[in-house]
Amino acid sequence: MAETDEAAPPTDQLGTMDLTTDTSLNHAFSDRVLIRSIVGRPDGGAGLAGKRVRVGGWVKTGREQAKGTLAFLELNDGSCPANLQAVVDAGVAVPKKLVAMGTCVVVDGILKIPPPPPQKQGTKQRPQRIELGVEKVLHIGEVADPAKYPIPKRNPTLEYLRDHLHLRSRTNTIAAIARIRNALAFATHSFFQEHHFLYVHTPIITTSDCEGAGEMFQVTTLINEADKNPNPQAKQLGIPKKKDGKIDYTKDFFARQAYLTVSGQLQVETYACGLSNVYTFGPTFRAEHSHTSRHLAEFWMVEPEIAFAELNDAMNCAEAYVKYLCKWLLDKCLDDLQFMDDKTCVDRLRMVAETPFVRISYTEAVKILEESGQRFEHRVEWGIYLASEHERYLTEVQFQKPVIVYNYPKGIKAFYMRLNDDLETVAAMDVLVPKVGELIGGSQREERYEVIRERILEMGLPLEPYEWYLDLRRYGTVKHCGFGLGFERMILFATGIDNIRDVIPFPRYPGRADL
Amino acid sequence: MAETDEAAPPTDQLGTMDLTTDTSLNHAFSDRVLIRSIVGRPDGGAGLAGKRVRVGGWVKTGREQAKGTLAFLELNDGSCPANLQAVVDAGVAVPKKLVAMGTCVVVDGILKIPPPPPQKQGTKQRPQRIELGVEKVLHIGEVADPAKYPIPKRNPTLEYLRDHLHLRSRTNTIAAIARIRNALAFATHSFFQEHHFLYVHTPIITTSDCEGAGEMFQVTTLINEADKNPNPQAKQLGIPKKKDGKIDYTKDFFARQAYLTVSGQLQVETYACGLSNVYTFGPTFRAEHSHTSRHLAEFWMVEPEIAFAELNDAMNCAEAYVKYLCKWLLDKCLDDLQFMDDKTCVDRLRMVAETPFVRISYTEAVKILEESGQRFEHRVEWGIYLASEHERYLTEVQFQKPVIVYNYPKGIKAFYMRLNDDLETVAAMDVLVPKVGELIGGSQREERYEVIRERILEMGLPLEPYEWYLDLRRYGTVKHCGFGLGFERMILFATGIDNIRDVIPFPRYPGRADL
Repeated sequence: MAETDEAAPPTDQLGTMDLTTDTSLNHAFSDRVLIRSIVGRPDGGAGLAGKRVRVGGWVKTGREQAKGTLAFLELNDGSCPANLQAVVDAGVAVPKKLVAMGTCVVVDGILKIPPPPPQKQGTKQRPQRIELGVEKVLHIGEVADPAKYPIPKRNPTLEYLRDHLHLRSRTNTIAAIARIRNALAFATHSFFQEHHFLYVHTPIITTSDCEGAGEMFQVTTLINEADKNPNPQAKQLGIPKKKDGKIDYTKDFFARQAYLTVSGQLQVETYACGLSNVYTFGPTFRAEHSHTSRHLAEFWMVEPEIAFAELNDAMNCAEAYVKYLCKWLLDKCLDDLQFMDDKTCVDRLRMVAETPFVRISYTEAVKILEESGQRFEHRVEWGIYLASEHERYLTEVQFQKPVIVYNYPKGIKAFYMRLNDDLETVAAMDVLVPKVGELIGGSQREERYEVIRERILEMGLPLEPYEWYLDLRRYGTVKHCGFGLGFERMILFATGIDNIRDVIPFPRYPGRADL
Repeated sequence: MAETDEAAPPTDQLGTMDLTTDTSLNHAFSDRVLIRSIVGRPDGGAGLAGKRVRVGGWVKTGREQAKGTLAFLELNDGSCPANLQAVVDAGVAVPKKLVAMGTCVVVDGILKIPPPPPQKQGTKQRPQRIELGVEKVLHIGEVADPAKYPIPKRNPTLEYLRDHLHLRSRTNTIAAIARIRNALAFATHSFFQEHHFLYVHTPIITTSDCEGAGEMFQVTTLINEADKNPNPQAKQLGIPKKKDGKIDYTKDFFARQAYLTVSGQLQVETYACGLSNVYTFGPTFRAEHSHTSRHLAEFWMVEPEIAFAELNDAMNCAEAYVKYLCKWLLDKCLDDLQFMDDKTCVDRLRMVAETPFVRISYTEAVKILEESGQRFEHRVEWGIYLASEHERYLTEVQFQKPVIVYNYPKGIKAFYMRLNDDLETVAAMDVLVPKVGELIGGSQREERYEVIRERILEMGLPLEPYEWYLDLRRYGTVKHCGFGLGFERMILFATGIDNIRDVIPFPRYPGRADL
């Protein structure tokens, strides 16, 4: 935090600082200092007493001691959960109201440690926080009618905030989640870059369907065009159709039916089969009418793909990656984590960061569940999908640590997963963690041409759309594996937040796509 | 590269290495060594002579000296542009053909420097490359019928490769572009993280239209549903309609008309007005029937947004960011850059990394163009859009360095750009660079409620869809600015590649969305 010492003397203009003389990263291209660079110091900012700085932020709470004399503003600029108290005394000419919550201000002043308040007998003196003695108010962005400010002062619920997406980043919880999400995203890139994976941008618009199932959104320019000139009499849209009554997609933008991707896996495999180690990290989509707290129509996935590697390598990579994320958060976001309502999240991250993951086969997992004496809603027997209650029993009750379940029955898994020698199971693996259950799903991919061709047919899928995928097996096939991590699930795990709609900035779900 | 010394002794199985003992990053979760960790060393791998390693890769070229005796394989695993030569002698039992281009092999062997060939009189002895004496072939992924391998041996054109997206990453040029693209993506995150910007995932599916213009793709589940049960007699799709004949979007997935985003700017502004410094980096879309070498229907944009900052800060940030990208590439990807057909790209990157950008107003730019004596296709006068020919004249001919043009006429720019005091221009800026012209477009945003409201009306736009955007100005408004960098344009600039379809892994354009 030594950069703060470099803070240039404030000027009257915002943003006039020359970048070439700005050696302080904390300025971030304007001549204010981030509040984090003051109050985020190990000494709470005490060592900066006497320094002259410019800060900007939004008023969290403000009060005037007596009209027009002394104002105290708790300022937050989003750089950290803590506020900086700014004190504006009567000597500072202030043209407008300052104290309303949500007001934006930019001020120059001198950092100081205020004199201790009169000490009550028997109480322990708390160290005084650093505060800013304001010398000049440079900008006020008023809240003209504070009664109409959409964010209530006292603990708005997360549900309420979902109806005010454009302002919710100003609240403590959503801001903390945003910083944690940012940290996890950069940690993701750092991890894979350190391990020599190449980031590949797989397509959002696709003409392939990864799973051979799943509801997909359609991407089109046809109906918008048709809708421009409606004809109420004809009761017919001007959408081009073929003789059989079906839509003629040769007239659509891509000359065929196109969708939003449900996974970048199949496409990223084409890059793994040439560049060895790759990953994709981007948005994926499901058009499922699911109203649960665990599903979104638009969500982000991290999908690494490793060539020259088998299922065990995928498990090693997944475990190392999840541990890396946990350590990163504990290192960079402890203040935000400690701010969360879920007071167990720091311990949970520590446990996962430090504990070797249990690895058991699906068959062993089913045996454990059968012998658990537990009454599950969904009956347990070999061959079933593991339900969330089963997964959480394994990781939360049985082992109380992360669990990797591998070698699933082929009947419940996708065609591209490698058939094991028993011909009954495939080399799939899921990583289960406390709080969210399944965090990661992955597999070794079937690299044998004859076997995967048979599997496609066996599952009743047409071969034609997969010819390009089969080519990867026809021409220089390679053993490879990969997995997908649901990025929002990782954030739920880290923060203890219950509803997935609160951990993505702009949640999309049935009936809602605000902004 | 010291990690290579840690290489564990090869075993018979792929992927059996225990992660806990794997201290070598170059393994990347399988027990092979990346070819880059051998041939990418400053000594070309010479210092590793005598080491036992496992490598995997695809055969670039292979030849047999005499049937079944001695085979030479140029292996590439995508980790760097250079190949490693593997020599398989008669002592190694090989069940199948090895030498066909595209064959995948995993081999164990000992690195060695071959004896120099007999020296011709008068020629200078070239240092011998390190090669791998193969002891065991662990895996062969055959190209069963080499005549059918879709990638021709000799210089396939980039245009030809566009018809074989799933295999083109195995070619030298596309692989080099992939590594450069990866480096630029990680450099982007590194730059903004170092400067304390938070990465915000703005939505892909949106119900807002950033520019109030531009062709957008529609996202729907309506017609797919209707198309499942066509009725050729009725000549009517089962799409729900309102009385006026228009489609009833309340029945669509999001209960209203939804689109693919054209920019994350407006949404990321909501986070800037709470968290100060943010950026978004994600896919954006245009449904324009544009068949040029400069346009894609799906492309990636980097859009930072800085609060408490003005136009000059945006220019400083843009210049620092572009310079950072150039330096990063020169530092990390020199071998790939030198591999490009465009032999000027290294010099161009150096020039941009080292040269202060020229900054001129739009008015000055027009004056320079008018007085240039140049015959332009598009007539120059104050008030016009600058065409690509004008932009390239400024940056390539007039200044021969990057140029930032600022303060454009308000009539040709978007409603959200801040009106200057002259009431004629807005605080917009474009960064122009040689080779591609406009690389970045940005502006200070209009933070004054009354002014932006007036601008929306002046441009004939409805107020209602922008009420949330106006709220940012109603409640604690802040001066802020930002810009967008077209990520593929940056890659065109860096690589000298001519067609944008070759610098994105899966290009989408009218009529094509392969895979």
